[in-house]
Amino acid sequence: MSVLVEFAIFPTDKGESVSEYVSRVIKMFKESDLNYQLTPMGTVFEVESMEEATAVINNAYKQLEPDCNRVYTTIKMDIRKNKSNRMKQKINSIKNKIGEVNA
Amino acid sequence: MSVLVEFAIFPTDKGESVSEYVSRVIKMFKESDLNYQLTPMGTVFEVESMEEATAVINNAYKQLEPDCNRVYTTIKMDIRKNKSNRMKQKINSIKNKIGEVNA
Amino acid sequence: MSVLVEFAIFPTDKGESVSEYVSRVIKMFKESDLNYQLTPMGTVFEVESMEEATAVINNAYKQLEPDCNRVYTTIKMDIRKNKSNRMKQKINSIKNKIGEVNA
Amino acid sequence: MSVLVEFAIFPTDKGESVSEYVSRVIKMFKESDLNYQLTPMGTVFEVESMEEATAVINNAYKQLEPDCNRVYTTIKMDIRKNKSNRMKQKINSIKNKIGEVNA
Repeated sequence: MSVLVEFAIFPTDKGESVSEYVSRVIKMFKESDLNYQLTPMGTVFEVESMEEATAVINNAYKQLEPDCNRVYTTIKMDIRKNKSNRMKQKINSIKNKIGEVNA
Repeated sequence: MSVLVEFAIFPTDKGESVSEYVSRVIKMFKESDLNYQLTPMGTVFEVESMEEATAVINNAYKQLEPDCNRVYTTIKMDIRKNKSNRMKQKINSIKNKIGEVNA
Repeated sequence: MSVLVEFAIFPTDKGESVSEYVSRVIKMFKESDLNYQLTPMGTVFEVESMEEATAVINNAYKQLEPDCNRVYTTIKMDIRKNKSNRMKQKINSIKNKIGEVNA
Repeated sequence: MSVLVEFAIFPTDKGESVSEYVSRVIKMFKESDLNYQLTPMGTVFEVESMEEATAVINNAYKQLEPDCNRVYTTIKMDIRKNKSNRMKQKINSIKNKIGEVNA
């Protein structure tokens, strides 16, 4: 099974710039063996079960919990049985149909 | 701590109407002691920790897992320390400022 | 056509509590003839075209634009041809299957 | 002003695989002069006003409207005054803090 996740998490009590806090979450990904991709609006990652996906999200919150009073997160998941490695395949299936794209 | 969640989960391999499948998830809420509210676009609920929130989402997926090959979910969370009972309070704080609203 | 929208919009440069700003957006709904419902995590409304839906969102941003430097919004839409009045119907179709629910 | 958008749009009445329909939307971006990036879970793009952002979303729906009865879209926007070119800057501000990342 392939669980593709796109999510963003940030404090809303720390003023206009929050990259210092977001960096902690990306560091968590960097130091893990997760297959992830940082984008300007969030992080995309792929795991093989819902429990793995939600464990990553719980861990992401833990990076902010110590000193953030209010945190907001948006998450979307595309969960598909009998599939794997969709971080590449979903992009390739578009390229096969319309050629090169910015990805 | 108050974890307010708004989420929707539905299969994308079952055709145009999916209320049969969504009803299973709402039945899960109905049979739980969770503080929840069904809306036309999802379900809002409140718990006291991220682990409780993600456990509900994992359980919601389990209602669809047996016979759905592809499932999509959107989730957003407003996580706030030193607060509780915000299902009512967030609405009341708006009403206190602008009077009655459709809620 | 029925365009069902669930969205939230709030400044992220105004500190932990933002209900003063969110109230402006809900006031916009209250003073309109839109079919809307405020929830603890956003506002659900129904219109008949994408142009109407996005015009509401542009107008919502205008309520915050004068004094907010950074604004975040999450939006999801369920767009369905040959349907109307789904604010009620989607809830009723669940009730018809599993009985009364918190809605 | 910089309006950063992450969104996904897809039909929910066309079965498990929808890449044929999603490709139409990406083709729209490819043939435009928009600054966009396709990810496995959506498309990120940057414009300078809310009106431009929502016009892109209206146009994306038009690519599916002719033959799709039900369409679902998730959108999130990070709207910030006095900024531009944040597709690169938001990633760089993370790299400056924690070094190279998968982006």
